Amino acid sequence: MKLPSKVKIVDVGPRDGLQNEKGQVPAEIKIGLVHRLQDAGLKEIEVTSFVSPKWVPQMADNAEVMAGIQRRPDVRYSVLVPNMKGFEAAVASRPDEIVVFGAASEAFSQKNINCSIAESIERFAPVAEAALAKGIAVRGAISTAVGCPYEGDVAPERVELVARLMKQIGVQHVGVADTIGVGTPKKVQAAMEAALKHYDIDHVSGHFHDTYGQALGNTLACLEMGVYHYDTSSAGLGGCPYAKGATGNVATEDVVYMLHGMGIETGIDLDKLIDAGKYISDFLQRKPNSRASTAILNKRAG
Amino acid sequence: MKLPSKVKIVDVGPRDGLQNEKGQVPAEIKIGLVHRLQDAGLKEIEVTSFVSPKWVPQMADNAEVMAGIQRRPDVRYSVLVPNMKGFEAAVASRPDEIVVFGAASEAFSQKNINCSIAESIERFAPVAEAALAKGIAVRGAISTAVGCPYEGDVAPERVELVARLMKQIGVQHVGVADTIGVGTPKKVQAAMEAALKHYDIDHVSGHFHDTYGQALGNTLACLEMGVYHYDTSSAGLGGCPYAKGATGNVATEDVVYMLHGMGIETGIDLDKLIDAGKYISDFLQRKPNSRASTAILNKRAG
Repeated sequence: MKLPSKVKIVDVGPRDGLQNEKGQVPAEIKIGLVHRLQDAGLKEIEVTSFVSPKWVPQMADNAEVMAGIQRRPDVRYSVLVPNMKGFEAAVASRPDEIVVFGAASEAFSQKNINCSIAESIERFAPVAEAALAKGIAVRGAISTAVGCPYEGDVAPERVELVARLMKQIGVQHVGVADTIGVGTPKKVQAAMEAALKHYDIDHVSGHFHDTYGQALGNTLACLEMGVYHYDTSSAGLGGCPYAKGATGNVATEDVVYMLHGMGIETGIDLDKLIDAGKYISDFLQRKPNSRASTAILNKRAG
Repeated sequence: MKLPSKVKIVDVGPRDGLQNEKGQVPAEIKIGLVHRLQDAGLKEIEVTSFVSPKWVPQMADNAEVMAGIQRRPDVRYSVLVPNMKGFEAAVASRPDEIVVFGAASEAFSQKNINCSIAESIERFAPVAEAALAKGIAVRGAISTAVGCPYEGDVAPERVELVARLMKQIGVQHVGVADTIGVGTPKKVQAAMEAALKHYDIDHVSGHFHDTYGQALGNTLACLEMGVYHYDTSSAGLGGCPYAKGATGNVATEDVVYMLHGMGIETGIDLDKLIDAGKYISDFLQRKPNSRASTAILNKRAG
């Protein structure tokens, strides 16, 4: 196995995770989660989104959350923006990075954001340009990169197309996202290979959901390709809107447990990470959706 | 990736799984589970154990269960035996294979079966001899092959020792078992390498627990070594006696989902397998402990 010696984790729990939770989480709790994640050693946190509260009421407190974080110079705070209006609102909150997105499935693009893939990229072109002009980094998320709830299997060529379009508008880094968690190691590698036709190994991420329990296998498969950026979600926050009651984003704890067990550095303190996940799970009145966390919390309880 | 094109799954749910469940499961339900597993295409099922009911009351109906199965000629029915007395009781029920066991951790051997590793192997020597004389296959399980609840990390040399001892007494096939689920891909590969010093690739299995969510990554790591036998448990039956409320054996459904997604044949019908897991989970009045099953059952429910 050729493996990276270090991995960079982006915790997307506060945004991608909490966005899919039913209950409204107060800004102070979100801020508390971000603080605990940075205390645990996370160096990049996807904090919130600047999508219209009509569509995503969970993130209506975006500006308040961003303003409330005691920032650290070595941590990158990113926010998701859907369009120019969202970007303008986001700028005031001084993100280090914005996240734009495009689906690899045409049907998903239509159902999710009511436009074609090509139109969605066109919409993001001025956003990326404006961000870069202001010195804000631009990351792109390629959703439904392996499978789509409407179309089924998604061909790697579709991922390549979106990666090419994102490259053209100046997106600096792309994440290959298995939005519905149906991917398995070889399929995920094929999707990642497609992205690597337009981005080098330093500028691609794996973003896996554990809906079918496949996320760690998929992560290992990408580690073996040398991929060293992964998006994960503290306590496995976020369900799957396409399968009620199912798991969404892979838990940061499970990924970090695997990486440390393999001798791969993350800079993350697993015990503090588990505390962060416990904090938000306690607020949500449920157990962390992470097997490593469950096992370690049980062990602590003795 | 060099990967096997076919994988053989041993479903250990009726024995290793149900043995760790709190409630007593009636023989007819166990038989119903075995029938559903073979209908789903499983070709080897670990049915029960012939351990004293004083120690494992859950398996006191061993003879009744074995007698009640409508056997198929192409399915192998195995039972676990702890000693000569257990073997003699098992013989009457005509198993195709017996399973003997030894820990790679001295402390675990002492606490679990109250004797040293060497003593446990000595105890199994006449059992293996008698089984082979009767034409019954003999499989060995090397428990705590990666980590031990009492000793912590277990060195691969310990696994090699147990594999050598098992080879000496005629055990034909060994399983490398991560009994407490603490293993990660490189550690599991090292343990498997150690077993492969005494057994060829056709005679080793991976037996992984998902306590820390690592089982599929570990399975993938072993697939990449060419290992093509895995023990798994329908519906993830069986908790972890060393971490209350934690996951035990990896769910057959999750492993099969991954294998099929990778184009690896198992001969198993995933939908029927999910039905089998649902059957026993319904009896236990809980949801299957399998993410693939959860996602697919949710999808069926629409």
